[in-house]
Amino acid sequence: MGEPAGIGPDLILRLYANRVELGLPPFIVYGHIDFLRARAARLRLPVAMLECTPPEAAARFAEALPVVHVDGLVPDKPGDPTALSGKVVIEAISRAVDDSLTGACRAIVTAPIHKAALYAAGFKYPGHTEYLAALCAQGGAAPMPVMMLAHEALRVIPATIHVPISAVPSLITFELVVSTGRIVAHSLRTRFGIAEPRIGFAGLNPHASEGGNIGTEDYDTVGPAIAQLQHEGILAEGPMPADTLFHLPHWRKYDAVIAMYHDQALIPIKTVAFDQAVNVTLGLPIVRTSPDHGTAFDLAGTGNGSDASFLNAIRLADELTGGAAQRAAAQ
Amino acid sequence: MGEPAGIGPDLILRLYANRVELGLPPFIVYGHIDFLRARAARLRLPVAMLECTPPEAAARFAEALPVVHVDGLVPDKPGDPTALSGKVVIEAISRAVDDSLTGACRAIVTAPIHKAALYAAGFKYPGHTEYLAALCAQGGAAPMPVMMLAHEALRVIPATIHVPISAVPSLITFELVVSTGRIVAHSLRTRFGIAEPRIGFAGLNPHASEGGNIGTEDYDTVGPAIAQLQHEGILAEGPMPADTLFHLPHWRKYDAVIAMYHDQALIPIKTVAFDQAVNVTLGLPIVRTSPDHGTAFDLAGTGNGSDASFLNAIRLADELTGGAAQRAAAQ
Repeated sequence: MGEPAGIGPDLILRLYANRVELGLPPFIVYGHIDFLRARAARLRLPVAMLECTPPEAAARFAEALPVVHVDGLVPDKPGDPTALSGKVVIEAISRAVDDSLTGACRAIVTAPIHKAALYAAGFKYPGHTEYLAALCAQGGAAPMPVMMLAHEALRVIPATIHVPISAVPSLITFELVVSTGRIVAHSLRTRFGIAEPRIGFAGLNPHASEGGNIGTEDYDTVGPAIAQLQHEGILAEGPMPADTLFHLPHWRKYDAVIAMYHDQALIPIKTVAFDQAVNVTLGLPIVRTSPDHGTAFDLAGTGNGSDASFLNAIRLADELTGGAAQRAAAQ
Repeated sequence: MGEPAGIGPDLILRLYANRVELGLPPFIVYGHIDFLRARAARLRLPVAMLECTPPEAAARFAEALPVVHVDGLVPDKPGDPTALSGKVVIEAISRAVDDSLTGACRAIVTAPIHKAALYAAGFKYPGHTEYLAALCAQGGAAPMPVMMLAHEALRVIPATIHVPISAVPSLITFELVVSTGRIVAHSLRTRFGIAEPRIGFAGLNPHASEGGNIGTEDYDTVGPAIAQLQHEGILAEGPMPADTLFHLPHWRKYDAVIAMYHDQALIPIKTVAFDQAVNVTLGLPIVRTSPDHGTAFDLAGTGNGSDASFLNAIRLADELTGGAAQRAAAQ
């Protein structure tokens, strides 16, 4: 459900209302059922809902929106986030992850959350993804989540994410680049079904450090990490100058490109596929996708706002877990 | 002429050979005429050449390629740069700038150079543009050159250029952002004929520092610099998150966008207009454009390689100096 004051519930309801035309795979919503009914009424969307369990959801999906009801206080106030609903938002995520870990759900698609509202309810993670990783720890160490932005065959992974530019160079270590490369290669093989994935790496510095004239990190750190990955049998290439790497015919040579920092990864994918790209979390024992946008408080409750990324997030979660094959086998 | 072992001379000759179909404005080449003849013969391009002065060039352009001959040793060895030709390359630039400063030429279009070959010949500048700025100093302080990449209505300026990412945050000062903004605004008014230019600024950090959660430079430095520019009557906006700023409908709202570092500026323009964009140097008393590529030693002498950026560089230099209006008046 995500943040109830945000656009997430709107998009879920709108997509469900158009499920037939869109050919949507079945899903179940973790959230507060009365709140969802209130939001549907506000948006004048004729969406019937029923409480059920994940195993029942597929069979009931045509008839009504399946919901795992999470009880608590969730006012329907679009654009006006409150700590009151934090408990429900947190529990909805936690229960969806649990059901994904047991296999009751095949994948989880998360809607945008509003961290400030959750902190007030006791949330203590830097973000959504870190919370998911912690939930996936199951008593052991939390796995290392890796964020991928995907749009059709274009996939890009920032090796560092929400950190200031000044912190990036010291965070780009041999270990980080190697770990990221391994997780990406493994995910492309096991989730995306690419037997021999090709992974391109962007250089940290302009012109990938240009022979050492523009910094040395690409020679001292990124290059040796790529060599290590190659040694492990991974088709890794680079570091390459980032400004030419994202030219589409170049980018498409790779099953994924690993960039060194947030804007280096997100500028090209948002320039090419602004509201279409999907956020996929690699490195977890579960499949998790999410739309590549925030709560959009100004649009919540209005019926406006693009559902393209959310729709693509649902479709990709289905695709990465063999949805089409399962449905064909069931017929 | 640029680096004789590079692709610059090839593109000049090819474009001249197609001058009628392309509707090229007249130009004159500063370089070694025998070398140019040898390269044309190698490429089997039927290009007649004549030595003349800039004022004569327009009238002779239909008949033969006008050349200001710069004497020296220039072997025709594509892909094999030598310090021997450095002296001619340097003098060709210097004479072209002199003729632009006096008004004998309206603008200068530079071909790619190979700095290593020039250093051996006594060149002592970090790059092409710094040399042009020094030549424009005319006894006073060198002007501050500002690099713009332009493709049709999309224009982007990196506030810092060929420096490692680790050096960027300390180089992004209030003074640098204000000076860059002033030069860009002035150039858009005086060269591009935009009376009230709108200038967007990308934030240094992801999400433009996101309320101070991801670094503080966008609040401490970039924001106050933009406020200063607004105070001076410039329509400056930002800092804005760079990943969404270059989505085309957003980008097109601005007559130019100022990015904080190399890849932040060059990734979007090369993703959108890979081999089409033109490099324009603002802040100089002369108009200077250049193709947005290097010497391409592997393509030199082969007849291959795109001339799109070089062609656009010639056309933009003409456009920025009222070429169309001058030709209309002359008829």
